[in-house]
Amino acid sequence: MSADKKAVVLLSGGMDSATVMALARQQGFEVYALSLRYGQRHSAELQAAAQVAQRLGAARHEIIDLDISHLFVGPRGSALTDNAIAVPVTGSSQGIPVTYVPARNTIMLSLALGWAEVLGAHDLFFGANAVDYSGYPDCRPAYVAAYETMANLATKAAVEGARLRIHTPIIEMSKADIVRTGLALGVDFALTVSCYQADTAGRACGLCDACRLRRKGFEEAGVSDPTRYVSAA
Amino acid sequence: MSADKKAVVLLSGGMDSATVMALARQQGFEVYALSLRYGQRHSAELQAAAQVAQRLGAARHEIIDLDISHLFVGPRGSALTDNAIAVPVTGSSQGIPVTYVPARNTIMLSLALGWAEVLGAHDLFFGANAVDYSGYPDCRPAYVAAYETMANLATKAAVEGARLRIHTPIIEMSKADIVRTGLALGVDFALTVSCYQADTAGRACGLCDACRLRRKGFEEAGVSDPTRYVSAA
Repeated sequence: MSADKKAVVLLSGGMDSATVMALARQQGFEVYALSLRYGQRHSAELQAAAQVAQRLGAARHEIIDLDISHLFVGPRGSALTDNAIAVPVTGSSQGIPVTYVPARNTIMLSLALGWAEVLGAHDLFFGANAVDYSGYPDCRPAYVAAYETMANLATKAAVEGARLRIHTPIIEMSKADIVRTGLALGVDFALTVSCYQADTAGRACGLCDACRLRRKGFEEAGVSDPTRYVSAA
Repeated sequence: MSADKKAVVLLSGGMDSATVMALARQQGFEVYALSLRYGQRHSAELQAAAQVAQRLGAARHEIIDLDISHLFVGPRGSALTDNAIAVPVTGSSQGIPVTYVPARNTIMLSLALGWAEVLGAHDLFFGANAVDYSGYPDCRPAYVAAYETMANLATKAAVEGARLRIHTPIIEMSKADIVRTGLALGVDFALTVSCYQADTAGRACGLCDACRLRRKGFEEAGVSDPTRYVSAA
Protein backbone atom coordinates (compact mmCIF):
# COMPACT_ATOMS: atom_id res chain seq x y z
CA MET A 1 0.00 0.00 0.00
CA SER A 2 1.26 3.46 -0.84
CA ALA A 3 2.53 5.30 2.22
CA ASP A 4 0.57 8.40 1.26
CA LYS A 5 -2.86 6.82 0.98
CA LYS A 6 -5.19 8.97 3.04
CA ALA A 7 -7.63 7.80 5.70
CA VAL A 8 -10.00 9.73 7.92
CA VAL A 9 -9.92 8.39 11.48
CA LEU A 10 -12.62 9.22 14.02
CA LEU A 11 -10.65 10.12 17.12
CA SER A 12 -12.53 10.66 20.37
CA GLY A 13 -9.57 10.79 22.72
CA GLY A 14 -10.42 7.46 24.30
CA MET A 15 -8.42 4.24 24.25
CA ASP A 16 -10.37 2.56 21.45
CA SER A 17 -9.99 5.23 18.79
CA ALA A 18 -6.33 5.74 19.73
CA THR A 19 -5.72 2.06 19.04
CA VAL A 20 -7.63 2.31 15.78
CA MET A 21 -5.50 5.25 14.71
CA ALA A 22 -2.35 3.27 15.49
CA LEU A 23 -3.68 0.41 13.34
CA ALA A 24 -4.39 2.81 10.47
CA ARG A 25 -0.83 4.12 10.70
CA GLN A 26 0.53 0.56 10.82
CA GLN A 27 -1.36 -0.15 7.58
CA GLY A 28 0.47 2.73 5.93
CA PHE A 29 -2.28 5.32 5.90
CA GLU A 30 -1.67 9.03 6.13
CA VAL A 31 -4.12 9.88 8.89
CA TYR A 32 -6.58 12.76 8.95
CA ALA A 33 -7.99 12.61 12.45
CA LEU A 34 -11.45 14.02 13.16
CA SER A 35 -12.97 14.87 16.52
CA LEU A 36 -16.31 16.43 17.34
CA ARG A 37 -17.17 19.01 19.96
CA TYR A 38 -20.90 18.39 20.32
CA GLY A 39 -21.50 19.52 23.86
CA GLN A 40 -20.15 16.49 25.65
CA ARG A 41 -19.63 16.97 29.40
CA HIS A 42 -15.95 17.73 29.33
CA SER A 43 -13.27 18.90 26.95
CA ALA A 44 -10.56 16.66 28.41
CA GLU A 45 -11.23 14.01 25.77
CA LEU A 46 -10.72 16.54 22.98
CA GLN A 47 -7.41 17.63 24.48
CA ALA A 48 -6.51 13.94 24.71
CA ALA A 49 -7.44 13.48 21.05
CA ALA A 50 -5.11 16.30 20.04
CA GLN A 51 -2.24 14.74 21.98
CA VAL A 52 -2.89 11.27 20.59
CA ALA A 53 -3.09 12.64 17.04
CA GLN A 54 0.24 14.36 17.41
CA ARG A 55 1.99 11.46 19.13
CA LEU A 56 0.83 8.93 16.54
CA GLY A 57 1.76 11.14 13.62
CA ALA A 58 -1.49 12.46 12.18
CA ALA A 59 -1.08 14.49 9.00
CA ARG A 60 -3.84 16.70 10.36
CA HIS A 61 -6.27 16.80 13.27
CA GLU A 62 -9.50 18.72 13.12
CA ILE A 63 -12.10 19.32 15.79
CA ILE A 64 -15.49 20.19 14.31
CA ASP A 65 -17.81 22.34 16.37
CA LEU A 66 -21.41 21.20 16.24
CA ASP A 67 -23.95 23.11 18.23
CA ILE A 68 -26.52 20.49 19.19
CA SER A 69 -26.39 20.22 22.96
CA HIS A 70 -29.46 22.47 23.35
CA LEU A 71 -31.44 20.03 21.19
CA PHE A 72 -30.21 16.78 22.73
CA VAL A 73 -31.86 17.23 26.10
CA GLY A 74 -34.77 15.75 28.01
CA PRO A 75 -35.92 12.19 28.63
CA ARG A 76 -34.81 10.95 25.19
CA GLY A 77 -31.59 13.02 25.20
CA SER A 78 -28.33 11.80 26.67
CA ALA A 79 -26.44 11.99 29.93
CA LEU A 80 -23.47 13.21 27.89
CA THR A 81 -25.29 16.27 26.50
CA ASP A 82 -27.84 17.02 29.23
CA ASN A 83 -26.31 17.76 32.62
CA ALA A 84 -29.68 17.09 34.23
CA ILE A 85 -29.26 13.39 33.43
CA ALA A 86 -26.74 11.74 35.73
CA VAL A 87 -24.03 9.47 34.36
CA PRO A 88 -24.65 6.02 35.90
CA VAL A 89 -21.93 5.00 38.33
CA THR A 90 -23.19 1.73 39.78
CA GLY A 91 -22.32 -0.52 36.85
CA SER A 92 -25.77 -2.05 37.00
CA SER A 93 -27.61 -0.46 34.08
CA GLN A 94 -29.67 -2.72 31.83
CA GLY A 95 -30.19 -2.28 28.09
CA ILE A 96 -28.91 0.74 26.20
CA PRO A 97 -27.65 3.20 28.82
CA VAL A 98 -28.48 6.88 29.13
CA THR A 99 -24.98 7.73 27.92
CA TYR A 100 -26.15 6.80 24.41
CA VAL A 101 -26.20 9.99 22.30
CA PRO A 102 -28.93 9.92 19.62
CA ALA A 103 -27.41 9.20 16.21
CA ARG A 104 -23.99 10.45 17.32
CA ASN A 105 -21.95 7.88 15.44
CA THR A 106 -24.07 8.44 12.34
CA ILE A 107 -23.45 12.17 12.59
CA MET A 108 -19.69 11.68 13.10
CA LEU A 109 -19.39 9.19 10.25
CA SER A 110 -21.29 11.58 7.98
CA LEU A 111 -18.93 14.44 8.75
CA ALA A 112 -16.02 12.06 8.16
CA LEU A 113 -17.59 10.96 4.88
CA GLY A 114 -17.79 14.55 3.65
CA TRP A 115 -14.26 15.38 4.71
CA ALA A 116 -12.95 12.15 3.15
CA GLU A 117 -14.51 13.15 -0.16
CA VAL A 118 -12.88 16.58 0.01
CA LEU A 119 -9.51 14.97 0.78
CA GLY A 120 -9.82 12.27 -1.85
CA ALA A 121 -9.71 9.60 0.85
CA HIS A 122 -11.57 6.34 0.37
CA ASP A 123 -11.00 4.87 3.82
CA LEU A 124 -12.64 5.70 7.14
CA PHE A 125 -11.48 4.19 10.42
CA PHE A 126 -14.07 3.92 13.18
CA GLY A 127 -13.41 2.57 16.67
CA ALA A 128 -16.71 0.80 17.16
CA ASN A 129 -16.59 -2.12 19.52
CA ALA A 130 -19.33 -4.71 19.84
CA VAL A 131 -17.85 -6.98 22.52
CA ASP A 132 -17.03 -5.22 25.79
CA TYR A 133 -19.24 -2.36 24.78
CA SER A 134 -22.08 -0.52 26.40
CA GLY A 135 -24.87 -1.78 24.17
CA TYR A 136 -24.90 1.07 21.69
CA PRO A 137 -26.82 0.24 18.50
CA ASP A 138 -24.45 2.29 16.33
CA CYS A 139 -21.47 0.10 17.23
CA ARG A 140 -22.86 -3.12 15.76
CA PRO A 141 -21.43 -4.74 12.61
CA ALA A 142 -24.85 -4.71 10.88
CA TYR A 143 -25.08 -0.97 11.42
CA VAL A 144 -21.59 -0.36 10.04
CA ALA A 145 -22.33 -2.48 6.97
CA ALA A 146 -25.55 -0.56 6.30
CA TYR A 147 -23.73 2.73 6.72
CA GLU A 148 -21.08 1.68 4.22
CA THR A 149 -23.75 0.66 1.70
CA MET A 150 -25.46 4.02 2.08
CA ALA A 151 -22.18 5.92 1.84
CA ASN A 152 -21.38 4.25 -1.45
CA LEU A 153 -24.57 5.74 -2.90
CA ALA A 154 -24.22 9.15 -1.27
CA THR A 155 -21.25 10.87 -2.83
CA LYS A 156 -19.93 12.19 -6.12
CA ALA A 157 -16.78 10.14 -5.47
CA ALA A 158 -18.87 6.96 -5.31
CA VAL A 159 -20.75 7.83 -8.50
CA GLU A 160 -17.40 8.31 -10.16
CA GLY A 161 -16.33 4.82 -9.15
CA ALA A 162 -14.44 5.18 -5.89
CA ARG A 163 -15.36 2.58 -3.30
CA LEU A 164 -15.47 3.83 0.28
CA ARG A 165 -14.47 1.39 2.99
CA ILE A 166 -15.29 1.74 6.66
CA HIS A 167 -12.65 -0.06 8.69
CA THR A 168 -13.65 -1.23 12.17
CA PRO A 169 -10.53 -3.16 13.15
CA ILE A 170 -11.38 -3.53 16.85
CA ILE A 171 -15.11 -4.27 16.50
CA GLU A 172 -14.70 -7.89 17.62
CA MET A 173 -11.92 -7.30 20.17
CA SER A 174 -12.27 -7.47 23.93
CA LYS A 175 -11.00 -4.49 25.90
CA ALA A 176 -8.01 -6.62 26.90
CA ASP A 177 -7.26 -7.29 23.20
CA ILE A 178 -7.44 -3.55 22.56
CA VAL A 179 -4.99 -2.86 25.39
CA ARG A 180 -2.55 -5.45 24.07
CA THR A 181 -2.90 -4.28 20.45
CA GLY A 182 -2.45 -0.64 21.35
CA LEU A 183 0.60 -1.29 23.51
CA ALA A 184 2.21 -3.35 20.75
CA LEU A 185 1.79 -0.39 18.41
CA GLY A 186 3.17 2.17 20.84
CA VAL A 187 -0.06 3.79 21.99
CA ASP A 188 0.50 5.74 25.20
CA PHE A 189 -2.77 5.03 26.99
CA ALA A 190 -1.82 7.54 29.69
CA LEU A 191 -2.71 10.21 27.12
CA THR A 192 -6.20 8.85 26.52
CA VAL A 193 -9.36 9.72 28.43
CA SER A 194 -12.27 7.28 28.41
CA CYS A 195 -14.28 8.53 31.40
CA TYR A 196 -17.69 10.03 30.64
CA GLN A 197 -17.21 12.69 33.28
CA ALA A 198 -13.50 13.34 33.51
CA ASP A 199 -12.49 16.50 35.33
CA THR A 200 -10.83 19.42 33.60
CA ALA A 201 -7.42 17.87 34.20
CA GLY A 202 -8.55 14.70 32.43
CA ARG A 203 -8.77 12.64 35.61
CA ALA A 204 -11.27 9.78 35.48
CA CYS A 205 -14.13 9.12 37.92
CA GLY A 206 -13.39 5.40 38.07
CA LEU A 207 -17.08 4.60 38.46
CA CYS A 208 -18.89 5.13 35.14
CA ASP A 209 -19.34 2.36 32.58
CA ALA A 210 -16.50 3.68 30.43
CA CYS A 211 -14.14 3.60 33.44
CA ARG A 212 -15.29 0.13 34.45
CA LEU A 213 -14.77 -1.31 30.97
CA ARG A 214 -11.39 0.34 30.66
CA ARG A 215 -10.10 -0.88 34.02
CA LYS A 216 -11.33 -4.40 33.28
CA GLY A 217 -9.38 -4.30 30.01
CA PHE A 218 -6.12 -3.46 31.70
CA GLU A 219 -6.73 -6.06 34.41
CA GLU A 220 -7.50 -8.83 31.94
CA ALA A 221 -4.49 -7.90 29.82
CA GLY A 222 -2.32 -8.08 32.93
CA VAL A 223 -1.02 -4.59 32.32
CA SER A 224 -0.71 -1.79 34.83
CA ASP A 225 -3.43 0.81 34.36
CA PRO A 226 -2.00 4.26 33.53
CA THR A 227 -5.35 5.99 34.03
CA ARG A 228 -5.28 9.03 36.30
CA TYR A 229 -8.21 8.82 38.67
CA VAL A 230 -9.79 11.65 40.67
CA SER A 231 -9.33 9.59 43.82
CA ALA A 232 -7.97 6.15 44.51
CA ALA A 233 -11.23 4.65 43.18
CA MET B 1 -53.43 9.99 11.86
CA SER B 2 -53.18 11.83 15.12
CA ALA B 3 -52.83 15.58 14.65
CA ASP B 4 -49.93 15.75 17.05
CA LYS B 5 -47.72 13.17 15.42
CA LYS B 6 -44.29 14.73 15.14
CA ALA B 7 -42.13 14.94 12.04
CA VAL B 8 -38.73 16.50 11.48
CA VAL B 9 -38.65 18.39 8.17
CA LEU B 10 -35.39 19.46 6.53
CA LEU B 11 -36.04 23.05 5.55
CA SER B 12 -33.48 24.84 3.40
CA GLY B 13 -35.50 27.92 2.57
CA GLY B 14 -35.93 26.93 -1.06
CA MET B 15 -39.14 26.08 -2.94
CA ASP B 16 -38.76 22.31 -2.70
CA SER B 17 -38.44 21.98 1.04
CA ALA B 18 -41.22 24.56 1.58
CA THR B 19 -43.54 22.40 -0.49
CA VAL B 20 -42.46 19.32 1.43
CA MET B 21 -43.21 21.05 4.72
CA ALA B 22 -46.68 21.98 3.43
CA LEU B 23 -47.26 18.32 2.49
CA ALA B 24 -46.17 17.20 5.97
CA ARG B 25 -48.62 19.67 7.51
CA GLN B 26 -51.38 18.47 5.16
CA GLN B 27 -50.75 14.92 6.38
CA GLY B 28 -51.38 16.09 9.92
CA PHE B 29 -47.86 16.17 11.25
CA GLU B 30 -46.66 18.56 13.91
CA VAL B 31 -43.57 19.90 12.17
CA TYR B 32 -40.12 20.37 13.71
CA ALA B 33 -38.23 22.20 10.99
CA LEU B 34 -34.44 21.88 10.81
CA SER B 35 -32.02 24.08 8.88
CA LEU B 36 -28.25 23.99 8.77
CA ARG B 37 -25.78 26.85 8.71
CA TYR B 38 -22.75 25.09 7.24
CA GLY B 39 -20.96 28.00 5.62
CA GLN B 40 -23.11 28.30 2.51
CA ARG B 41 -22.55 31.48 0.50
CA HIS B 42 -25.44 33.46 1.88
CA SER B 43 -27.75 33.59 4.85
CA ALA B 44 -30.80 34.67 2.85
CA GLU B 45 -31.97 31.09 2.52
CA LEU B 46 -31.86 30.61 6.30
CA GLN B 47 -33.92 33.76 6.81
CA ALA B 48 -36.31 32.39 4.19
CA ALA B 49 -36.49 29.09 6.07
CA ALA B 50 -37.45 30.90 9.25
CA GLN B 51 -40.25 32.76 7.45
CA VAL B 52 -41.52 29.63 5.74
CA ALA B 53 -41.49 27.71 9.01
CA GLN B 54 -43.54 30.39 10.73
CA ARG B 55 -46.00 30.86 7.87
CA LEU B 56 -46.66 27.14 7.50
CA GLY B 57 -47.09 26.62 11.22
CA ALA B 58 -43.99 24.83 12.42
CA ALA B 59 -44.13 23.80 16.07
CA ARG B 60 -40.46 24.71 16.20
CA HIS B 61 -37.68 25.75 13.84
CA GLU B 62 -34.02 25.21 14.63
CA ILE B 63 -30.94 26.28 12.76
CA ILE B 64 -27.92 24.17 13.65
CA ASP B 65 -24.49 25.75 13.35
CA LEU B 66 -21.92 23.43 11.85
CA ASP B 67 -18.43 24.74 11.39
CA ILE B 68 -17.17 22.89 8.31
CA SER B 69 -16.58 25.53 5.65
CA HIS B 70 -12.85 25.63 6.38
CA LEU B 71 -12.68 21.89 5.63
CA PHE B 72 -14.87 21.83 2.52
CA VAL B 73 -12.53 23.76 0.27
CA GLY B 74 -10.26 23.04 -2.67
CA PRO B 75 -10.74 21.12 -5.91
CA ARG B 76 -13.00 18.49 -4.31
CA GLY B 77 -14.84 21.02 -2.13
CA SER B 78 -17.93 22.89 -3.27
CA ALA B 79 -18.78 26.19 -4.87
CA LEU B 80 -21.25 26.68 -2.02
CA THR B 81 -18.58 26.49 0.70
CA ASP B 82 -15.45 27.71 -1.09
CA ASN B 83 -15.73 31.24 -2.46
CA ALA B 84 -12.74 30.55 -4.71
CA ILE B 85 -14.95 28.20 -6.77
CA ALA B 86 -17.40 30.11 -8.96
CA VAL B 87 -21.07 29.15 -9.11
CA PRO B 88 -21.76 28.15 -12.76
CA VAL B 89 -24.08 30.60 -14.49
CA THR B 90 -24.13 29.36 -18.09
CA GLY B 91 -26.51 26.45 -17.60
CA SER B 92 -24.18 24.19 -19.55
CA SER B 93 -22.49 22.10 -16.86
CA GLN B 94 -22.19 18.36 -17.45
CA GLY B 95 -22.31 15.68 -14.77
CA ILE B 96 -22.45 16.47 -11.07
CA PRO B 97 -21.91 20.22 -10.75
CA VAL B 98 -19.47 22.01 -8.48
CA THR B 99 -22.38 23.15 -6.32
CA TYR B 100 -22.53 19.61 -4.94
CA VAL B 101 -21.52 19.74 -1.25
CA PRO B 102 -19.74 16.55 -0.12
CA ALA B 103 -22.11 14.39 1.94
CA ARG B 104 -24.28 17.39 2.82
CA ASN B 105 -27.59 15.58 2.64
CA THR B 106 -26.16 12.68 4.64
CA ILE B 107 -24.97 15.12 7.30
CA MET B 108 -28.35 16.90 7.41
CA LEU B 109 -30.33 13.67 7.55
CA SER B 110 -28.09 12.44 10.36
CA LEU B 111 -28.71 15.56 12.43
CA ALA B 112 -32.42 15.19 11.72
CA LEU B 113 -32.23 11.54 12.76
CA GLY B 114 -30.72 12.47 16.10
CA TRP B 115 -33.19 15.25 16.76
CA ALA B 116 -36.10 13.01 15.75
CA GLU B 117 -34.99 10.45 18.31
CA VAL B 118 -34.84 13.11 21.03
CA LEU B 119 -38.32 14.33 20.06
CA GLY B 120 -39.81 10.86 19.80
CA ALA B 121 -40.55 11.46 16.10
CA HIS B 122 -40.50 8.56 13.67
CA ASP B 123 -40.92 10.53 10.45
CA LEU B 124 -38.41 12.63 8.52
CA PHE B 125 -39.40 14.72 5.50
CA PHE B 126 -36.69 15.40 2.93
CA GLY B 127 -37.15 17.51 -0.20
CA ALA B 128 -34.96 15.44 -2.49
CA ASN B 129 -35.88 15.65 -6.14
CA ALA B 130 -34.57 13.28 -8.81
CA VAL B 131 -36.33 14.70 -11.89
CA ASP B 132 -35.56 18.36 -12.61
CA TYR B 133 -32.56 18.14 -10.34
CA SER B 134 -28.92 19.00 -10.69
CA GLY B 135 -27.53 15.48 -10.73
CA TYR B 136 -26.77 15.19 -7.03
CA PRO B 137 -26.15 11.59 -5.92
CA ASP B 138 -27.73 12.15 -2.53
CA CYS B 139 -31.12 12.99 -4.06
CA ARG B 140 -31.67 9.61 -5.70
CA PRO B 141 -34.30 7.11 -4.49
CA ALA B 142 -31.69 4.36 -4.06
CA TYR B 143 -29.71 6.61 -1.75
CA VAL B 144 -32.76 7.50 0.33
CA ALA B 145 -33.72 3.84 0.66
CA ALA B 146 -30.21 2.92 1.80
CA TYR B 147 -30.21 5.79 4.30
CA GLU B 148 -33.52 4.60 5.74
CA THR B 149 -32.20 1.05 6.11
CA MET B 150 -29.10 2.34 7.92
CA ALA B 151 -31.16 4.64 10.14
CA ASN B 152 -33.30 1.74 11.28
CA LEU B 153 -30.17 0.05 12.64
CA ALA B 154 -28.60 3.19 14.10
CA THR B 155 -30.74 4.29 17.00
CA LYS B 156 -31.98 3.22 20.37
CA ALA B 157 -35.50 4.00 19.16
CA ALA B 158 -35.08 1.51 16.30
CA VAL B 159 -33.74 -1.18 18.62
CA GLU B 160 -36.78 -0.63 20.80
CA GLY B 161 -39.06 -1.26 17.83
CA ALA B 162 -39.86 2.15 16.33
CA ARG B 163 -39.67 2.21 12.55
CA LEU B 164 -38.26 5.41 11.08
CA ARG B 165 -39.65 6.52 7.75
CA ILE B 166 -37.99 9.01 5.41
CA HIS B 167 -40.66 10.72 3.33
CA THR B 168 -39.57 12.15 -0.02
CA PRO B 169 -42.94 13.24 -1.41
CA ILE B 170 -41.57 15.33 -4.29
CA ILE B 171 -38.77 13.02 -5.39
CA GLU B 172 -40.52 12.10 -8.64
CA MET B 173 -42.13 15.50 -9.31
CA SER B 174 -41.09 17.96 -11.99
CA LYS B 175 -40.43 21.51 -10.84
CA ALA B 176 -43.79 22.46 -12.42
CA ASP B 177 -45.51 19.79 -10.31
CA ILE B 178 -43.80 21.20 -7.23
CA VAL B 179 -45.03 24.71 -8.06
CA ARG B 180 -48.60 23.49 -8.53
CA THR B 181 -48.53 21.34 -5.40
CA GLY B 182 -47.10 24.12 -3.27
CA LEU B 183 -49.58 26.70 -4.52
CA ALA B 184 -52.50 24.36 -3.86
CA LEU B 185 -51.29 24.02 -0.26
CA GLY B 186 -50.82 27.73 0.28
CA VAL B 187 -47.05 27.97 0.01
CA ASP B 188 -45.99 31.58 -0.59
CA PHE B 189 -43.09 31.04 -2.96
CA ALA B 190 -42.21 34.72 -2.72
CA LEU B 191 -40.79 33.88 0.71
CA THR B 192 -38.50 31.16 -0.61
CA VAL B 193 -34.96 31.58 -1.92
CA SER B 194 -33.53 28.98 -4.29
CA CYS B 195 -30.59 30.90 -5.77
CA TYR B 196 -27.11 29.59 -4.91
CA GLN B 197 -25.75 33.11 -4.62
CA ALA B 198 -28.65 35.31 -3.53
CA ASP B 199 -27.74 38.73 -2.23
CA THR B 200 -28.23 39.75 1.37
CA ALA B 201 -31.78 40.90 0.57
CA GLY B 202 -32.59 37.45 -0.80
CA ARG B 203 -32.65 38.55 -4.42
CA ALA B 204 -31.77 35.84 -6.93
CA CYS B 205 -29.06 35.98 -9.61
CA GLY B 206 -31.35 34.48 -12.24
CA LEU B 207 -28.44 32.65 -13.86
CA CYS B 208 -27.32 29.73 -11.67
CA ASP B 209 -28.71 26.24 -12.09
CA ALA B 210 -31.05 26.65 -9.12
CA CYS B 211 -32.49 29.84 -10.64
CA ARG B 212 -32.85 28.22 -14.07
CA LEU B 213 -34.67 25.17 -12.71
CA ARG B 214 -36.93 27.34 -10.58
CA ARG B 215 -37.87 29.69 -13.41
CA LYS B 216 -38.55 26.76 -15.72
CA GLY B 217 -40.89 25.33 -13.09
CA PHE B 218 -42.99 28.45 -12.90
CA GLU B 219 -43.04 28.78 -16.69
CA GLU B 220 -44.14 25.19 -17.23
CA ALA B 221 -46.78 25.49 -14.53
CA GLY B 222 -48.09 28.63 -16.24
CA VAL B 223 -47.79 30.58 -13.02
CA SER B 224 -46.28 34.01 -12.58
CA ASP B 225 -42.85 33.82 -10.97
CA PRO B 226 -42.71 35.67 -7.66
CA THR B 227 -38.92 35.45 -7.45
CA ARG B 228 -37.15 38.72 -6.74
CA TYR B 229 -34.19 39.00 -9.07
CA VAL B 230 -31.14 41.23 -8.69
CA SER B 231 -31.78 42.58 -12.18
CA ALA B 232 -34.39 41.82 -14.83
CA ALA B 233 -32.47 38.70 -15.74
